[in-house]
Amino acid sequence: MKTAGIITIGNELLYGSVVDTNASYIGQRVTEIGLEPVCIITVGDKASQITQALEIACKKVDVLFITGGLGPTHDDITKRIIAESIGQDLVFNSEILKNIEMVFTQRKITMPKSNRIQAYFPRKAKIIANSIGTAPGFQVQYLNTEIFVMPGVPCEMEQMLDEQVLPWLTTLSQGKTILHRWIKTTGIGESSLSLLLENVIKKANNIKIASLPQETGVNLRLTAEGKDKEEAGQHIQAVEDVIVNKASQYIYGMDDDLLEEVVGRLLSKTKATVAVAESCTGGQVASLITNAPGSSAYFIEGVITYSNFSKIARLDVAEATIRCHGAVSAQTAAEMAQGVRQISGATYGLSTTGIAGPSGGTKAKPIGLVYLGLADSNGVKTEKLMLGMERKANKTQAALASLNLLRQFLVNGKGHSGQSN
Amino acid sequence: MKTAGIITIGNELLYGSVVDTNASYIGQRVTEIGLEPVCIITVGDKASQITQALEIACKKVDVLFITGGLGPTHDDITKRIIAESIGQDLVFNSEILKNIEMVFTQRKITMPKSNRIQAYFPRKAKIIANSIGTAPGFQVQYLNTEIFVMPGVPCEMEQMLDEQVLPWLTTLSQGKTILHRWIKTTGIGESSLSLLLENVIKKANNIKIASLPQETGVNLRLTAEGKDKEEAGQHIQAVEDVIVNKASQYIYGMDDDLLEEVVGRLLSKTKATVAVAESCTGGQVASLITNAPGSSAYFIEGVITYSNFSKIARLDVAEATIRCHGAVSAQTAAEMAQGVRQISGATYGLSTTGIAGPSGGTKAKPIGLVYLGLADSNGVKTEKLMLGMERKANKTQAALASLNLLRQFLVNGKGHSGQSN
Repeated sequence: MKTAGIITIGNELLYGSVVDTNASYIGQRVTEIGLEPVCIITVGDKASQITQALEIACKKVDVLFITGGLGPTHDDITKRIIAESIGQDLVFNSEILKNIEMVFTQRKITMPKSNRIQAYFPRKAKIIANSIGTAPGFQVQYLNTEIFVMPGVPCEMEQMLDEQVLPWLTTLSQGKTILHRWIKTTGIGESSLSLLLENVIKKANNIKIASLPQETGVNLRLTAEGKDKEEAGQHIQAVEDVIVNKASQYIYGMDDDLLEEVVGRLLSKTKATVAVAESCTGGQVASLITNAPGSSAYFIEGVITYSNFSKIARLDVAEATIRCHGAVSAQTAAEMAQGVRQISGATYGLSTTGIAGPSGGTKAKPIGLVYLGLADSNGVKTEKLMLGMERKANKTQAALASLNLLRQFLVNGKGHSGQSN
Repeated sequence: MKTAGIITIGNELLYGSVVDTNASYIGQRVTEIGLEPVCIITVGDKASQITQALEIACKKVDVLFITGGLGPTHDDITKRIIAESIGQDLVFNSEILKNIEMVFTQRKITMPKSNRIQAYFPRKAKIIANSIGTAPGFQVQYLNTEIFVMPGVPCEMEQMLDEQVLPWLTTLSQGKTILHRWIKTTGIGESSLSLLLENVIKKANNIKIASLPQETGVNLRLTAEGKDKEEAGQHIQAVEDVIVNKASQYIYGMDDDLLEEVVGRLLSKTKATVAVAESCTGGQVASLITNAPGSSAYFIEGVITYSNFSKIARLDVAEATIRCHGAVSAQTAAEMAQGVRQISGATYGLSTTGIAGPSGGTKAKPIGLVYLGLADSNGVKTEKLMLGMERKANKTQAALASLNLLRQFLVNGKGHSGQSN
């Protein structure tokens, strides 16, 4: 497997004024065509820093991508420094100057003299055209490393990489494909998930499994290599099947799937609708559901009943239920879910009630205690969660759990195939 | 000037599955306290790559920040590799294990055995507590370089850096004080704000002004240097006063202020309460309000009336209003705000109705059109917004604008001093 390195150049990257999206873009694209990225180095617009990064990278990698510092201003020194480092002089290219002048003519601006510098390249460089800006890229070789130098403006770099550099590289790579698959989970922590999948991870020889905790839950990335897409796909599928079988109750989707969109698709499939009654999540369940485009087709309405008065007045929760069991109880959650289903006429009613913190906890009902309710025409089920100490995290976790409860019910309760608990 | 380096560790960064925001965050923060970042190196979860990055960085910089690979799973090898590289063995710390176990106890989960590894540290390391996760950081010295190792989860890293690492580093700097002040705005874009403040920014000689667009709005950072805190503070105050005077309608707070907490304090001051009726924001206004601890004291209830039926049934919006003016209109917004105020008995009723997208727009009522309502005992006012094309951004911007409308009203309408439009 050929290795790849990335050097991104610019003071703004070091000082954090700009987040380096070029590096992740290149990383993703070159991984897809079967190169293995092994390092990213970011340096400022300073000769010594660029020289050193180049020396380090060229000793390590087969293919090197460099971005930034090809503009016409005084701090754009990338081209000059690379030419010096690889022992080539800069040569003027009149064809390229004509192209640059044309960009200015089209914009009805006189070309500033400073832009002439963009028509100079290392003597043996192959020039890579820039179809949307004035800074062409170029390709050179140094110490057995293929070096591609591209502008730092993300849209120019991306177009140059996708349309010119990658097709070129693909023809050089020898019959290997790398494939990725994301498995997206919610409602289980990273260490518990890795414990649950311990044996799968141990036995998975020809694929790599990485776990990435996000606010929405832990995402697993499966990576496989094969002589073609089909072979790599088979390696992934084998492991994916085992994982889905072991952890289905937590797995809501693959790749770009979002929990709220998965739930939306499941509801739409059966023309079902949903309404929500929220206490501790304070509107976040509804907000999550309505993040999905087209949710107005299945989301009827929501009520946020923060006070006891509101639970009774809006949802017909019995005063006695709150008095006997408390507002934070399975009984209240159940009556809230049934209440909102009734007033809205929705197929399903969802509810949340709990203690988000930072105050309001007792020994019997500590911060982080949450009850979820789910009502349909056959009755109501509730679920108890024990979350953490942090208010916002508790709201988010409870909202996700509420949606995941509905998802599980739609998948299993309604006899959809493909997953089982 | 002391130099700083950053090493970020994780295959997901190399493969571009995740954009490296930790590096830019650290770069920005350490620049603020007067260090000069000179390189960022990103490597994968591989011993040889980490060792090499460490060797390169320690030869170059005075202070080194490392993030990632402190979790409990098999690919978290950062601690072991650093210990080996600097020639220290890993030592078990029973105090830290107790802290980690406590996090699990609070969540009522048995700690997986794998988490024990998070209680091991290089022998001479100073441990840095993690107040929101299970992975503590630590500090060691190697080849005249001060090394700070932090977790890769951005919120954990940011809190550790801001609350522990930076104060520590600041005390090491000699005889100069650098002071920062954040001015937090919402409801105005970065370029409009910079135009509004053009003269202020030009004339501000001895302080630096940076603007940072966030989801919540544009934050301005004022940075001043002085021989002591008092002198630096005076430089900042002079410029801050001019900015607050020019842009008060957009400025909701300073430093750590959050819009929802500012509004909550204003409501609490006069023992006022609020209820919300949401259409296009789908629960996000309520969710934002209830993010603030203690919001149950002033937030009565919310209704999310996504359908016309629900607007009429829940809020008593006149059928004729929707028929004549449409669900997305100032008239409907006004009746929604008045309706929710009436049913809840709250001091203030807030409402939103609009077209979030990506579908549902017409020529007369395009995607991004939103009406806000605010009702009190004297009547109702409405505001029209013209937002963008992106559904989630529209929801967020409309929710923030609704809260800012209430904030402006509480500050001006009620005669509170301190700000004027």
